[in-house]
Amino acid sequence: MRMYDLIMKKRNGEALTKEEIQYMITEYVDGKIPDYQMSAFLMAVYFKGMNEEETLAMTQAVAHSGDMVDLSGIEGMKVDKHSTGGVGDKTTLVIAPIVASCGVKVAKMSGRGLGHTGGTVDKMEAIPGMRTSLDREEFFDVVNKTGLSVIGQSGNLAPADKKLYALRDVTATVDSIPLIAVSIMSKKLAAGNDGILLDVKTGSGAFMKTVEDSIALAKEMVSIGENAGKKMAALITNMDIPLGHNIGNSLEVIEAVETLKGKGPADLTEVCLQLASNMLYLAGKGTEEACRALAENAIRSGAALERLVAMVEAQGGDSEVILNPEKFEKAPYVYEVKAEKDGYITHIDAEGCGIASAMLGAGRETKESEIDYTAGIILHKKTGEKVEKGDVLAALYTSKEELFEAAAEKYKKSIFIEEEAPKKEPLVYARVTPKGIEKY
Amino acid sequence: MRMYDLIMKKRNGEALTKEEIQYMITEYVDGKIPDYQMSAFLMAVYFKGMNEEETLAMTQAVAHSGDMVDLSGIEGMKVDKHSTGGVGDKTTLVIAPIVASCGVKVAKMSGRGLGHTGGTVDKMEAIPGMRTSLDREEFFDVVNKTGLSVIGQSGNLAPADKKLYALRDVTATVDSIPLIAVSIMSKKLAAGNDGILLDVKTGSGAFMKTVEDSIALAKEMVSIGENAGKKMAALITNMDIPLGHNIGNSLEVIEAVETLKGKGPADLTEVCLQLASNMLYLAGKGTEEACRALAENAIRSGAALERLVAMVEAQGGDSEVILNPEKFEKAPYVYEVKAEKDGYITHIDAEGCGIASAMLGAGRETKESEIDYTAGIILHKKTGEKVEKGDVLAALYTSKEELFEAAAEKYKKSIFIEEEAPKKEPLVYARVTPKGIEKY
Repeated sequence: MRMYDLIMKKRNGEALTKEEIQYMITEYVDGKIPDYQMSAFLMAVYFKGMNEEETLAMTQAVAHSGDMVDLSGIEGMKVDKHSTGGVGDKTTLVIAPIVASCGVKVAKMSGRGLGHTGGTVDKMEAIPGMRTSLDREEFFDVVNKTGLSVIGQSGNLAPADKKLYALRDVTATVDSIPLIAVSIMSKKLAAGNDGILLDVKTGSGAFMKTVEDSIALAKEMVSIGENAGKKMAALITNMDIPLGHNIGNSLEVIEAVETLKGKGPADLTEVCLQLASNMLYLAGKGTEEACRALAENAIRSGAALERLVAMVEAQGGDSEVILNPEKFEKAPYVYEVKAEKDGYITHIDAEGCGIASAMLGAGRETKESEIDYTAGIILHKKTGEKVEKGDVLAALYTSKEELFEAAAEKYKKSIFIEEEAPKKEPLVYARVTPKGIEKY
Repeated sequence: MRMYDLIMKKRNGEALTKEEIQYMITEYVDGKIPDYQMSAFLMAVYFKGMNEEETLAMTQAVAHSGDMVDLSGIEGMKVDKHSTGGVGDKTTLVIAPIVASCGVKVAKMSGRGLGHTGGTVDKMEAIPGMRTSLDREEFFDVVNKTGLSVIGQSGNLAPADKKLYALRDVTATVDSIPLIAVSIMSKKLAAGNDGILLDVKTGSGAFMKTVEDSIALAKEMVSIGENAGKKMAALITNMDIPLGHNIGNSLEVIEAVETLKGKGPADLTEVCLQLASNMLYLAGKGTEEACRALAENAIRSGAALERLVAMVEAQGGDSEVILNPEKFEKAPYVYEVKAEKDGYITHIDAEGCGIASAMLGAGRETKESEIDYTAGIILHKKTGEKVEKGDVLAALYTSKEELFEAAAEKYKKSIFIEEEAPKKEPLVYARVTPKGIEKY
């Protein structure tokens, strides 16, 4: 077998066999296929795509390039959730406790933030004392004891994906739907859960800018997971505006806790309830209506909040800040962005908000950057709201006063005020399951 | 400027500016742009093409990556001919003397053979004593004195093309018409001639398999040359069967000499006359009819043969073998391939013939292989001829008897005998000039 022939085959629009794909990934990870051949192949995939069998074969080959996590030491069904990344997305901190309180185990490995998107691991580390790096035994112990644990990705998961992603990142081959599906699903298959709910974010703050592309990506991922024997579903959710009001690490934990107390913003609460009930449904907890009722009850009864407190304590965190979020350390500097004219907010560019928040210290420019956990933005007005000149649109928080000017400038450019009220967009556009697509 | 953005631009079907292309080639040759980015770019060009301005800019950037030959030391108009490569293509040895005898200088750098195609430099070296490696001064002297000189490529011509070609060769990006045009024309522009006649070979023995692709390639190259200020034309010629009867180095020199003596095969003679008269036309030697008459007369009068003898002597070769080709050393072993049934020869796979000839010792597998100048094939029967079982189809020549079996097997597989006579194909399909396409 020669890589040259595989490039040629794909370039000519033919499908590769499972054996060819397995060979390609193995030899590439071993350094026997050079980057210049792989990048030509990836560009050919950008133009010619891959069929269902190829995408499955490539996902499995990439997953098996490293450790395959064995979660059998945790009793019961384990359901994972994966978000394609957004701004102000603190849903994991809400839904993992909800699902755990309903008897479904959540053994989740999460990522850190980079660029304009945040990461769940960073948010958890905003809780004083919280440890996100547990060894396997302790991870399983926490899940078995509290029903859930969220940690940073550990071990050698899908190293082929790391190598491929780094190459795609410099050769303009990132935005290919089958390659994105392979990248996400290879890590999910390696993580060893029985069910996977995908949250495919759509809009200005997301990687997928249109509902059509999001549905296409969701279909590919659901099909890969289904063919690999996993329980699968995907929600296509709105990330045209940030979710909830808070962006930034401790600010988002505070908002997640408020939501678990039943006092969260309506949009965040609704998206969390839909995500959580779909996870419960995947775990076989009854009809869709029954699962929704279970999720609502988990918040109402306080059972979900109890799970979060238990996990925080089990991972060494200070649960006082969860029970009393006003005890979180506050940013020393606050700056208010005010409306410069009357009108309706017609659009908030979520990516722009994420960048402004990162500029305040909440994100990292490079992997080595330090995070200011108190930094971030609280949105006082969101898309669709009527504002008058001088109204406070948002409050910006930071520990370094000199960061305000540029961040405020960026924030102002991300918010659009016009005379006409905008059309109301749904929070969730569609659900994709192995049975098909339901549009909402 | 970042290579990433240039890949993205091309991938999205946009055109690069002249400055962007210049930057890309310069940085690539300097090793500042890695192969893995360039191969992704090349694959994007495979799918999205390049427009006229891009192709011109890339050709000029590649040409200027090395020496630009200055032929001003040679008096008068210099016209080059380039063949895209074929089997049994000894036309240079016929037309350079014809053109030179009509007063147009030919200062030509040629290549060596590799794989199934031969190279003019190897053929010339079949002449005892012949030197093909002259320094610039001697090269100019020979041209000024004899009217022509054919030597091996020397100096540092278009090093970017060497680097790009090596990369295309392993990433399945060779067969892109704009990239082929850039590769050929960059070397032609660097070689410094005033006019360039392109001989685009078409058919089973050529790189371009269809007339349509050949015309498309010719159009691109003519347009590049025209925009670079050169006199340009291209002939689309038939390479579905080998040209003439002889394949192999000394065998081809013998056939070229026979043609210059007016006793060559009809197909070879006609193609040479068309190529030569087009070169004369580019050099401004009169109407097409006048140029044709000049070329015919150059053979009839013996003036062209005289020029070949003069060049051979000037380059240290033994002109005795030119005047009396029977003095060429003969291969010690001959093997006749006979027809296994009655019928018409419907097709001779020229590439297969070229490979069989190389297997007899006439070609080289790798750049280091030694050539057997006496080895090769004489075709006794060609496409369209009626044969009876037992007729000699071809004679195979070699210095190593053990090479016959495999070569004969290959030759037999390249010749097709059927009941029905095949359709007659023209020798020259079309002519492409800056004014347009004339189909014959």
